[in-house]
Amino acid sequence: MSEPASTSEPRFGTLVIAGVGLIGGSIAAAARQRQLAERIVGIGRTESRLAGAVKAGLIDEGSTSVAAAADANFAVVCTPVDRICDDVRALAEVLSPDALITDAGSTKQIVCEDLADLCGADGPAFIGSHPLAGSQLQGFEHSDATLFQDRICVVTPTDATQPNNTRRVEQFWRDLGAVVVQRTPGEHDQVLARTSHLPHLVAAALAGSLQPADLELAASGFRDTTRIAAGDPGLWAPILTQNARSVQDALGELQGRLREFADSLQHDDPSALQKLLEEAKRQRDGLG
Amino acid sequence: MSEPASTSEPRFGTLVIAGVGLIGGSIAAAARQRQLAERIVGIGRTESRLAGAVKAGLIDEGSTSVAAAADANFAVVCTPVDRICDDVRALAEVLSPDALITDAGSTKQIVCEDLADLCGADGPAFIGSHPLAGSQLQGFEHSDATLFQDRICVVTPTDATQPNNTRRVEQFWRDLGAVVVQRTPGEHDQVLARTSHLPHLVAAALAGSLQPADLELAASGFRDTTRIAAGDPGLWAPILTQNARSVQDALGELQGRLREFADSLQHDDPSALQKLLEEAKRQRDGLG
Repeated sequence: MSEPASTSEPRFGTLVIAGVGLIGGSIAAAARQRQLAERIVGIGRTESRLAGAVKAGLIDEGSTSVAAAADANFAVVCTPVDRICDDVRALAEVLSPDALITDAGSTKQIVCEDLADLCGADGPAFIGSHPLAGSQLQGFEHSDATLFQDRICVVTPTDATQPNNTRRVEQFWRDLGAVVVQRTPGEHDQVLARTSHLPHLVAAALAGSLQPADLELAASGFRDTTRIAAGDPGLWAPILTQNARSVQDALGELQGRLREFADSLQHDDPSALQKLLEEAKRQRDGLG
Repeated sequence: MSEPASTSEPRFGTLVIAGVGLIGGSIAAAARQRQLAERIVGIGRTESRLAGAVKAGLIDEGSTSVAAAADANFAVVCTPVDRICDDVRALAEVLSPDALITDAGSTKQIVCEDLADLCGADGPAFIGSHPLAGSQLQGFEHSDATLFQDRICVVTPTDATQPNNTRRVEQFWRDLGAVVVQRTPGEHDQVLARTSHLPHLVAAALAGSLQPADLELAASGFRDTTRIAAGDPGLWAPILTQNARSVQDALGELQGRLREFADSLQHDDPSALQKLLEEAKRQRDGLG
């Protein structure tokens, strides 16, 4: 299916990464390892952080100005979802017309709607992406060249997207080791509300409900169930806000199911409870 | 704090384990490794399973009859919580008056109330225990001699328990590597409702809400959050049923917090959302 990851000729001249944190840094590390680009430029807001990423060997050059990205033919915006649109537009101003811009954000509908004029553009075109990889850790210091290996990356072209551009973006993620699937931006957001955004909210609600007396008796089950609640609130608040409608729908469904559990306990109905637990186990086992 | 785990003289003559599954098998493996007993007898319901545990070197002898346990001076009942009381009583009938019986069940109040007449008995005495260790795996085949190493074990003496017996049970768990804490049966159940039983119910509700289209896009966050939903419904339905009152209370608190999240989304109040996520992160980070 996928082409060889490494060829004698780098696929890109200059690759630009806007936002050199865990995801941006890992893209740089993976691109470096697979020799995908001649040069990697990082765009960020803090000089000292960019200098650190250069020193760590992740990027060749770091700048707080998008002007440094002008000669790139591929750009990935890895900033928090509430900054993606501005950052894509700033890059689109300086990049050449045949350049492509994608992102790595956890929401797609608002971003793709807001950037609709760039999706089918003759100038630099934008196509949304979301690699399903990451961790609760933050910062380029935790970069991992294998972060995307065998992980799903959702690419979300719109009706306006030129198929050839979609293929180029998909190949970029495959080159980093990912398995690419296509969804519309709306489909992406509905599904991710159930598989990622609601679980984050629920993990946070469970962690937030813990009482001081509980700490000593919180074992591995609790730790696993609430691990993602350690994620950066500055990243997650905008994700939940941008996908508020779908998250609320998913929460409504979950509350309905929690009521079924509560009813089985209230009415001392072990067979109803057993059935609910069996259905859950079947679904969970199905994930492998 | 703890005495040396291994002495030249085994601490027990015969150690009895009723229910040789993951927990019972791991107790046997740990006791074997630390040479705590001269002989380990397994009591179970299925001859072939017991024969398998003998063959695996976990127990010296397996029997479907408690009569085989008659000469033991220490017994651990590792059966599902809805069978513990019957199994403790059956053992108490055959064991000598100075023998001790404990268990490894996830609920304590109903069990300790039901067995109150054995808690301060002159005959074989019962003291409740709950090692906070385990996994979603089942069966003695997954036994692990290090399962209890550095894990918390809650011991729940009642007012009627003789302090010397409490010390003996606590030393047993310490000998297996566990860190022992004391709680009343009621305190145990209230805390475990929040740290274990409700998280299980919530993980099951999340897993049960998954739609077929979601499977491909369920990444590590979803997997972690729902891992415990793969646990055996036959074990978990009785746990939730026995602790129904505390679980319902904990669920009520959680639903209140979920409403706060929903309100912040509904009213597009990012600062309220951010505050909820920050509180959750602080609590989760506090677990280390």
